[in-house]
Amino acid sequence: MQLLELNKLNIIGGAHDALSAKIVALSGYDGIWASGLGISAVHCVPDMSILSMNEFVSTASYMTFATDKPVIFDCDAGFGNLHNVFRMVKEFERAGVSAICMEDKKHPKLNSFIEKEQICEDADVFASKIRVAVDSRKSTNLKIIARCESLISGMGQSEALRRCALYANAGADAILIHSKQKNSDEIISFCKEWKSILPVVIVPTTYPDLEINNSLLELGISTVIFANQALRASVRSMEEKLLGIRSTLSSTYYENEISSVKEIFKLQGIDQINNLEKKYA
Amino acid sequence: MQLLELNKLNIIGGAHDALSAKIVALSGYDGIWASGLGISAVHCVPDMSILSMNEFVSTASYMTFATDKPVIFDCDAGFGNLHNVFRMVKEFERAGVSAICMEDKKHPKLNSFIEKEQICEDADVFASKIRVAVDSRKSTNLKIIARCESLISGMGQSEALRRCALYANAGADAILIHSKQKNSDEIISFCKEWKSILPVVIVPTTYPDLEINNSLLELGISTVIFANQALRASVRSMEEKLLGIRSTLSSTYYENEISSVKEIFKLQGIDQINNLEKKYA
Amino acid sequence: MQLLELNKLNIIGGAHDALSAKIVALSGYDGIWASGLGISAVHCVPDMSILSMNEFVSTASYMTFATDKPVIFDCDAGFGNLHNVFRMVKEFERAGVSAICMEDKKHPKLNSFIEKEQICEDADVFASKIRVAVDSRKSTNLKIIARCESLISGMGQSEALRRCALYANAGADAILIHSKQKNSDEIISFCKEWKSILPVVIVPTTYPDLEINNSLLELGISTVIFANQALRASVRSMEEKLLGIRSTLSSTYYENEISSVKEIFKLQGIDQINNLEKKYA
Amino acid sequence: MQLLELNKLNIIGGAHDALSAKIVALSGYDGIWASGLGISAVHCVPDMSILSMNEFVSTASYMTFATDKPVIFDCDAGFGNLHNVFRMVKEFERAGVSAICMEDKKHPKLNSFIEKEQICEDADVFASKIRVAVDSRKSTNLKIIARCESLISGMGQSEALRRCALYANAGADAILIHSKQKNSDEIISFCKEWKSILPVVIVPTTYPDLEINNSLLELGISTVIFANQALRASVRSMEEKLLGIRSTLSSTYYENEISSVKEIFKLQGIDQINNLEKKYA
Repeated sequence: MQLLELNKLNIIGGAHDALSAKIVALSGYDGIWASGLGISAVHCVPDMSILSMNEFVSTASYMTFATDKPVIFDCDAGFGNLHNVFRMVKEFERAGVSAICMEDKKHPKLNSFIEKEQICEDADVFASKIRVAVDSRKSTNLKIIARCESLISGMGQSEALRRCALYANAGADAILIHSKQKNSDEIISFCKEWKSILPVVIVPTTYPDLEINNSLLELGISTVIFANQALRASVRSMEEKLLGIRSTLSSTYYENEISSVKEIFKLQGIDQINNLEKKYA
Repeated sequence: MQLLELNKLNIIGGAHDALSAKIVALSGYDGIWASGLGISAVHCVPDMSILSMNEFVSTASYMTFATDKPVIFDCDAGFGNLHNVFRMVKEFERAGVSAICMEDKKHPKLNSFIEKEQICEDADVFASKIRVAVDSRKSTNLKIIARCESLISGMGQSEALRRCALYANAGADAILIHSKQKNSDEIISFCKEWKSILPVVIVPTTYPDLEINNSLLELGISTVIFANQALRASVRSMEEKLLGIRSTLSSTYYENEISSVKEIFKLQGIDQINNLEKKYA
Repeated sequence: MQLLELNKLNIIGGAHDALSAKIVALSGYDGIWASGLGISAVHCVPDMSILSMNEFVSTASYMTFATDKPVIFDCDAGFGNLHNVFRMVKEFERAGVSAICMEDKKHPKLNSFIEKEQICEDADVFASKIRVAVDSRKSTNLKIIARCESLISGMGQSEALRRCALYANAGADAILIHSKQKNSDEIISFCKEWKSILPVVIVPTTYPDLEINNSLLELGISTVIFANQALRASVRSMEEKLLGIRSTLSSTYYENEISSVKEIFKLQGIDQINNLEKKYA
Repeated sequence: MQLLELNKLNIIGGAHDALSAKIVALSGYDGIWASGLGISAVHCVPDMSILSMNEFVSTASYMTFATDKPVIFDCDAGFGNLHNVFRMVKEFERAGVSAICMEDKKHPKLNSFIEKEQICEDADVFASKIRVAVDSRKSTNLKIIARCESLISGMGQSEALRRCALYANAGADAILIHSKQKNSDEIISFCKEWKSILPVVIVPTTYPDLEINNSLLELGISTVIFANQALRASVRSMEEKLLGIRSTLSSTYYENEISSVKEIFKLQGIDQINNLEKKYA
């Protein structure tokens, strides 16, 4: 998987189910971010470790059946302790994901954008979790991304750097440094100090101003994730059309603004079905 | 549940997961249609009995946790024979749905809009399935809707009428008569002959021209389902925004056209979370 | 449910899947203990919060479909924090269990008989979890049992009494006091001091010497759980017969020591199947 | 996988969950038969396509995590039509099984020992299913076994031979020929005529008189499955011990006839847990 390599800038789109994963893949992204926020959202539960690990594994499996593009799975805080991480790696590797991203929060975790206290895991404990993940995968084709929440939790840049070095030392393949600032200053500052010890992954949800281009490679950023825009597009559009249809009691007006049933069939794989029948029936 | 009663016209919105079910509910619909097409689509498999029954039960459960509005569940052809129907009713009743809709196709079934031969179940066998469903529910609060595919499969109106009478006799609470014509002629013709033996449910996907208003009540139509527009809205919007973001490498332009992260949090129930913490932590 | 009432001594048998639950029910027990150890064991994972909550919910659902006798479900440490407990109650209540038992360990938890440090949850935090469980059930038909691990973790009797009083105050319907001593002294000592503030449930796995009879009612013990003997019987017997068949390459010798295929069919409900066919086919 | 090769006689033990699969493996069998009867039984539902395909996939996954010995999965009638078979192969291959066995019954199927009419699939249709299974596996390491029910359904030996030849031609890796006679005559007669076109698998449940030794290799039988003895041993033992404990209100008497809790821990993998902690905590 080239997804985390600094040869080129990798652009990843966030998905929340198999269908959105397929649409991300068909839209030219280099890979899919299986978003914990998004997957929780479509199940209508908050993004705070309410869904069980095996509900995420299940989504992982549908996603990797839907597309051959690499899936980076948001594995929250690893769903518990070392033993949970061990099982997690076995399950997600089997489910066919290409990378696992684990963040240094305490489990049960809280979405990074929820305005409550963000409690981080002890750095050494988390480094052990990374080590377990790294050692228990069957193949190094499965990449392990250590996500650092020091900037989110207010611990600051030096702690972020200290932690990321620990995680690199534990064998992580890349670092995801997360920020909720309205601009990219702290991300850029971090990258300059980090000096590409490992490739850096970023998620510019709150700082969409950041210009995404090859100059990021010089900062050591290999991968940019547009994590939840597909979900948010989907929600806005459903709200608008559902309200409109409800108030007018007609879908006629919207027929041209929504996909056709045939387009849905196509995304579901009707061509493959037809081919199978032609060949075997 | 008033959903199937002829006192008023009930407007139902189709959903494909818990989140869309909640948005349907919040948009003023009288209930939710849990669409087999939609649920298959978000799992990226064709609508032809590829998903297992218990994958649908799982979706049912998430939906009814997400909203208190009644859910009508699309149970395809009943997932097998009499014994499968027996288990199906037990499972969906427990999952909290308000109505089950079962169609008189052979299992494994094919989506009605797929242009292949549509094979119907023997009418008496299907009537037995309806009878099992009716008898094995714990409470008559769970409604059983018999969906007739005679117009879809080309068997014509008289066969539709004959079958629906059998299903009514077997104890169904309502009839769903389906059509794939480009206008509502055959639906209206059917209703006139049917003479309200049981309330009629319709799904005007291919005939959006039909005017939805109280005059339908006189035809015996109690319930109108906008079955898949939310899904189709969602897909179109995701495609547009994902392509746009991919080509511009920026989400800035779309920030005002998609829901905010806070709106997503709200749909996920962040208020309830806050209340729980205030009260108990 | 009379299961926790002091009118009579209730004898509960532990089960690890739907089949063993049904056998417990048919063997004259007053109810079923859905054992976390047992359910983990049949999935071949350690009893330390490796299985996800919804894997347990799934087992609960199969069990309550298999028998009408009340099921007390071992919910470990509540699968996380207050919010996880909230979801847990909703899910298990829907799955049809009659009581939930939650222990005052930290999540992820460790089986009480594993010889490692047993880390208990802060007492007030756990009391809050009990309060959430009590308040979020739909019906008080669902009983909430607070399991105290003070004797297991070495915190002693006075801490056990202090904690149980807190849990009673939080609304628990009964107390399960657990011990791993080789005799029942500390259990009896606890009960004498506890003075029946709430009914007491015991699990005499390590102290099978305790005489189980109505005199326990005077100690305030309403309920005795034989938690894992069915599982252990099953394992021993499978080992013996499998080894014997493997070495002799014949099952002939064992045919009279194992159930017949017809007996298995009966447990699976073949009579109900036949009745359904007679009535409807 | 050597499981189906005629170099040696392969002895397979039937399992119904991950724990029994591990016990089979530890008891010296060459592989595990994941029995549809057994898996249905522990879920307390009849063996007639009541469990959904993905409930079986789930069991497959737990089994292959529990042991490295090869698992042959009983895939009933393929869970539907060609398209269901296509998905089935993808799912079970990912779940790590070594072989899939599919029988030429109509779906939903009926256990072969239930005394009702046994309806077989059209031979050419079933051959197409075998062809789909063969072609849609990722790797030929996954073996496809065609199970012929002609002797069960009363169609006789010549039809059995005709069908097995069709299935061999469709690419099956082995034939399972099933019989419910009280002796092995018809099995031996079949094998003599079959002349080892493909290796033969047998399941001597009703004819335990058959001597299992290397002379079977000469008949072309490579593999013998003791399909359900572990389940039946388990049930008998649970019934006896549960009844005994219930009537004596004491487990003391049985402590030496059942496994210890420590033995259960060992089967659950406590050693691996300890090693993980020693290494990483």
